[in-house]
Amino acid sequence: MSDDARLTPLPTPCLLVDEARMKRNIARLAQHATALGVTLRPHLKTTKSIEAARHVLTGGCGPATVSTLAEAEVFAAAGIDDILYAVGISPDKLGRVIALHRAGCRLSVLLDSVAQAKAVAAAARQAGIAIPAMIEIDSDGHRSGLAPDDPALIDVGRILHEDGAALAGVLCHAGESYTAVGRDAHARFAEAERRAVVDAATALRRAGLPCPAVSVGSTPTAHGARDLSGVTELRAGVYVFFDLVMAGIEACTVDDIALSVLTTVIGHQTARGWTICDAGWMAMSRDRGTAAQRVDQGYGLVCDTAGRVIPGLYVSQANQEHGVIARHPDHDGEVPDLLLGTRLRILPNHACATAAQHQRYHVLPDGGDGGDNPGAPLLEWPRFGGW
Amino acid sequence: MSDDARLTPLPTPCLLVDEARMKRNIARLAQHATALGVTLRPHLKTTKSIEAARHVLTGGCGPATVSTLAEAEVFAAAGIDDILYAVGISPDKLGRVIALHRAGCRLSVLLDSVAQAKAVAAAARQAGIAIPAMIEIDSDGHRSGLAPDDPALIDVGRILHEDGAALAGVLCHAGESYTAVGRDAHARFAEAERRAVVDAATALRRAGLPCPAVSVGSTPTAHGARDLSGVTELRAGVYVFFDLVMAGIEACTVDDIALSVLTTVIGHQTARGWTICDAGWMAMSRDRGTAAQRVDQGYGLVCDTAGRVIPGLYVSQANQEHGVIARHPDHDGEVPDLLLGTRLRILPNHACATAAQHQRYHVLPDGGDGGDNPGAPLLEWPRFGGW
Repeated sequence: MSDDARLTPLPTPCLLVDEARMKRNIARLAQHATALGVTLRPHLKTTKSIEAARHVLTGGCGPATVSTLAEAEVFAAAGIDDILYAVGISPDKLGRVIALHRAGCRLSVLLDSVAQAKAVAAAARQAGIAIPAMIEIDSDGHRSGLAPDDPALIDVGRILHEDGAALAGVLCHAGESYTAVGRDAHARFAEAERRAVVDAATALRRAGLPCPAVSVGSTPTAHGARDLSGVTELRAGVYVFFDLVMAGIEACTVDDIALSVLTTVIGHQTARGWTICDAGWMAMSRDRGTAAQRVDQGYGLVCDTAGRVIPGLYVSQANQEHGVIARHPDHDGEVPDLLLGTRLRILPNHACATAAQHQRYHVLPDGGDGGDNPGAPLLEWPRFGGW
Repeated sequence: MSDDARLTPLPTPCLLVDEARMKRNIARLAQHATALGVTLRPHLKTTKSIEAARHVLTGGCGPATVSTLAEAEVFAAAGIDDILYAVGISPDKLGRVIALHRAGCRLSVLLDSVAQAKAVAAAARQAGIAIPAMIEIDSDGHRSGLAPDDPALIDVGRILHEDGAALAGVLCHAGESYTAVGRDAHARFAEAERRAVVDAATALRRAGLPCPAVSVGSTPTAHGARDLSGVTELRAGVYVFFDLVMAGIEACTVDDIALSVLTTVIGHQTARGWTICDAGWMAMSRDRGTAAQRVDQGYGLVCDTAGRVIPGLYVSQANQEHGVIARHPDHDGEVPDLLLGTRLRILPNHACATAAQHQRYHVLPDGGDGGDNPGAPLLEWPRFGGW
């Protein structure tokens, strides 16, 4: 295999993005949302990059979803002015929420309890800003949210609407869909999400309360949804890059994965058939999301520098700065020898977790024909972390 | 429980260090190394902080161990001038190694093959710098290294010594000791480490080659070692903070753990007995190192803001920005209700992995009496990442 000369100067391990694949992933879901008649509100927690957000937010300034106030602050400063902070709000964070509103960003918060609603309403009254709040609804027992028929839903909605905040709508995230394999299964989770929020919205409206936004989404359900009647917006995040966990549940194919870690072979344990590379868990993350899937991909699948999977190899184990490349137990055939210094690309289990281990993306520019442009220099997109 | 007012302004999740515990951990291993008659070469990969390194390196400028060239570059710029880069060297990294030497840092590299030795020797000759190289020896089949009686040991040593580099010595890391429980078991791993490097050093010297440094270490074996005859230096890293994995194998107690993540309660799922906090896997890391231990601590043990463990609670699961606090299955008694907004501290499975998710430490200053000084303001120590 001949190496891509643009990758030679990069110190390893480092993070690569295949821009053509990323754009294809973005376009596919955008088209699906249009066909379903809903607004796409992409989750920016996967990329945490202003440059990547410019591609994801085809409208430019939003709408967007974030998982931390640090993301909200960075993206608001970059001009994104319609942001949903989709993690349950605690009272200590409301000062930063109000500061973002004063800076011109319409930041919505998420909650599922009377205690939170009272705190948000009190802060909103005090600041004179009707903080928009979404009520989280549970469709699958995954984590948070009220059942659509929980009487607390109306109490929460009434506090928000009447005591100084703004009841912005209802939201559901079918986190359990990550464990379901295949488009039909994802469609069933999508329908459960849809029904939960539509039922909740109906209950609120029957109680005389507003419910303008009806929001659903996760990467599997967003792609699996076949009918979103009654829903206004769709959220998804990891679809921008995809990863082995998503491929394992057939939300994408391995060829859709736009993120990889560039690594160098740093040694061998020939007697054990091991090649040691410098992509340890510090570069890949400790995420072992495929461990519970039908095919356990270890810490990642091994590709050549052109991004083509090398059949039969995977990262079988990882220490902090060492990855052990070995023959996958499902593979019977030969595997190539990988000499000291060989450059490889590792496809990750979980794009959100792997990307978070790095400070920047090295981007292989889109060639406009479905592949990258080998004549164009790499781009560099900074990414950020923190809270 | 009354909250520590110094923690109130901190946005959560964030990283806390108990300086008194950290200093106690540092002093204990320094005393043990002195008693064993060896030099301590602390591993700085856990803390990745210049301020923390000043405490760890009681001598000031080294010796130190690192896991990335980025660490070597940051610490060299801070005046640390004797550094071992303890991950197998690849040829593409030798330019940065030479640049560090030219900047005044004596950086040693690690290798275990003829191919690496030839590359290091060639680069050394070309640069006119006798790059010091340690040969890695395997004592437990953990990952890398030559067997002490492998004939390649002499070949590698001769290439380094005769072709332009400097044969600096032999090194062993008993990574498998992390799976052994109890001081006696660690002592046996320590003796295996000692014997492997002493045998390798003897073989090199019998072949007429020098072997000045004889280096062993891992946190369990460093503390477990009872006799290090023939060894010159001891390495360890995570002992500075310790963690639940180390407590699970009895390398420390839970009360020795100096690192925690400050978190806030952001919601509840009362029917399931769940309290939701904002320490998800982004703050804790995906490390599940206690999953294979006798007691699985989930994503961490829950403490009050004074750092006292709350019996019966643990972080049972984690999403990106959500931690689920639940009753530990081993606990029969009552557990307290944790109201919205309650601040807690989570002890991590793996200090290296958890610290790497954060950009700074908030330090509770040592009070000089074994505890912290509640009247002193918090310190802030930046940390760095990357390669």
